[in-house]
Amino acid sequence: MGLRLVRYVHCGNESYGVLKDGRIIDLPRLYRLRGKQAPRSLEELIISGWKIDEADRLINEISEGEMRRISIDEENAALKAPILSPPKIVCLGLNYRDHAEESGAKIPEEPIIFMKPRTSIVGPEEPVIKPGFVKELDYEVELAVIISRKGKNIPVSEAADYIFGYTVFNDISARDIQFKDGQWTRGKSFDTFAPIGPCITTSTQVGDPTDLRLRTRVNGEIRQDSSTSNMVFNVYEVIHHLSRVMTLEPCDIIATGTPGGVAVFMKPKPKFLQPGDTVEVEIEKIGTLRNPIAEE
Amino acid sequence: MGLRLVRYVHCGNESYGVLKDGRIIDLPRLYRLRGKQAPRSLEELIISGWKIDEADRLINEISEGEMRRISIDEENAALKAPILSPPKIVCLGLNYRDHAEESGAKIPEEPIIFMKPRTSIVGPEEPVIKPGFVKELDYEVELAVIISRKGKNIPVSEAADYIFGYTVFNDISARDIQFKDGQWTRGKSFDTFAPIGPCITTSTQVGDPTDLRLRTRVNGEIRQDSSTSNMVFNVYEVIHHLSRVMTLEPCDIIATGTPGGVAVFMKPKPKFLQPGDTVEVEIEKIGTLRNPIAEE
Repeated sequence: MGLRLVRYVHCGNESYGVLKDGRIIDLPRLYRLRGKQAPRSLEELIISGWKIDEADRLINEISEGEMRRISIDEENAALKAPILSPPKIVCLGLNYRDHAEESGAKIPEEPIIFMKPRTSIVGPEEPVIKPGFVKELDYEVELAVIISRKGKNIPVSEAADYIFGYTVFNDISARDIQFKDGQWTRGKSFDTFAPIGPCITTSTQVGDPTDLRLRTRVNGEIRQDSSTSNMVFNVYEVIHHLSRVMTLEPCDIIATGTPGGVAVFMKPKPKFLQPGDTVEVEIEKIGTLRNPIAEE
Repeated sequence: MGLRLVRYVHCGNESYGVLKDGRIIDLPRLYRLRGKQAPRSLEELIISGWKIDEADRLINEISEGEMRRISIDEENAALKAPILSPPKIVCLGLNYRDHAEESGAKIPEEPIIFMKPRTSIVGPEEPVIKPGFVKELDYEVELAVIISRKGKNIPVSEAADYIFGYTVFNDISARDIQFKDGQWTRGKSFDTFAPIGPCITTSTQVGDPTDLRLRTRVNGEIRQDSSTSNMVFNVYEVIHHLSRVMTLEPCDIIATGTPGGVAVFMKPKPKFLQPGDTVEVEIEKIGTLRNPIAEE
């Protein structure tokens, strides 16, 4: 049960579908095959509360010939950021014990948050642009929650009902600007500083989000390697705390913080991202999100 | 030249129009009168790049009888927040010299920013809700810029071309949470913590935004009384600096910081907002935005 959903471009046309065994099954075409109409986009699918489990059933029912007709080889498509216009992108700081420790910061009593603008989103393989006046570019692998429906004051015990699925989030940060300002927002809000993807894995497919392995590699070298079990506030507690502050809405993205191993705190000295580098962030049951670094 | 635009509800119907001499001239009806179709909403009007100066001309051309038919008394309408779904709300901290001083903070070399979610927006007369666990509720009058079109790396000399108009913004803040977190976002992101209105005055009507008087009154008592001439970075410099970081988009709201006089720094002791209070923020050429404070 559950699906890995992607937005993709094939032969110049944009659509969305389900990743399965190296192929992308186009969802709008799957539904047309059954005389039904699917939502126009992945974002609309989430906002409309579409019964996504039905897609799972339809995929299992269709014949091999039909499957051929409505699917393409994953390698022939360009995967895109699954969501482009979230109502908000809320990010947690210091939400892993080892990262709080390497930062020399106290473990927070309540989640520390900041936000990124939608203009910072890019998808798989799209370059992260290092602005000319930024010196210290860093990565942060993060599990991102995609919210399914509107909610306020959500108890921890009901938080799972508000999760549509998960994606991989790279919270790219200009450390020089982040630390100079004191407030983190500016240094993390540049265009291209929020790669997301490669897919949204639905919550039924992920199952328990409190013990997923997550890793970062820069040019193949492992930099971060941890588990969501090391979070200070787990996914459900994060949703509870945030919803005491703000109404959550469908398609909201919540990035749940990063574990230890970021470039700025490396010993004997930082190893910041440089133009020409490739950064990969990977989370179990979701996938690997890869982006090259480019000069402005 | 120039207009004061409002979103409003009258007899249960929502529309938008122009404030003039105590009346609201309905814009969709004005255009229908001339066999034309206006955008469906104020947000769509801004996004579509609609030639708003034409409305000005049409208003001057119509007869008194026609004017009666397409307008209502301002007092019979409920004004609403002019924009509900901005792509982003970016706010500046410490952008007035006297406020930086009362905070004991250095004048910033570059703008310090944070963001608010759209879920924090309310309109005129709508209550600001003080959550039960917030102790120190504060006001901040701010001139907010409404962006007209997409832009990146905008020179100061061209910034005026990217401004649709201005509204009044009250950057409501839970000081206890803001200072406990260090990061300002959470304490400023609660639902109802971003009152905006009462109108958007177009930039041609405002003219020079670098010397506008702005004031706050709590239950009639003046708390803030300053001029936008005391900004560290003026409106055009703010647009320049922000656009070096992020692409600006139509309907983006940029709140340009607050002058001295906030509750938390009052001597001999702070005078925070309490349920039952009424807070009014006023800016020359735009108007007064009034909100009651209510208990959760």
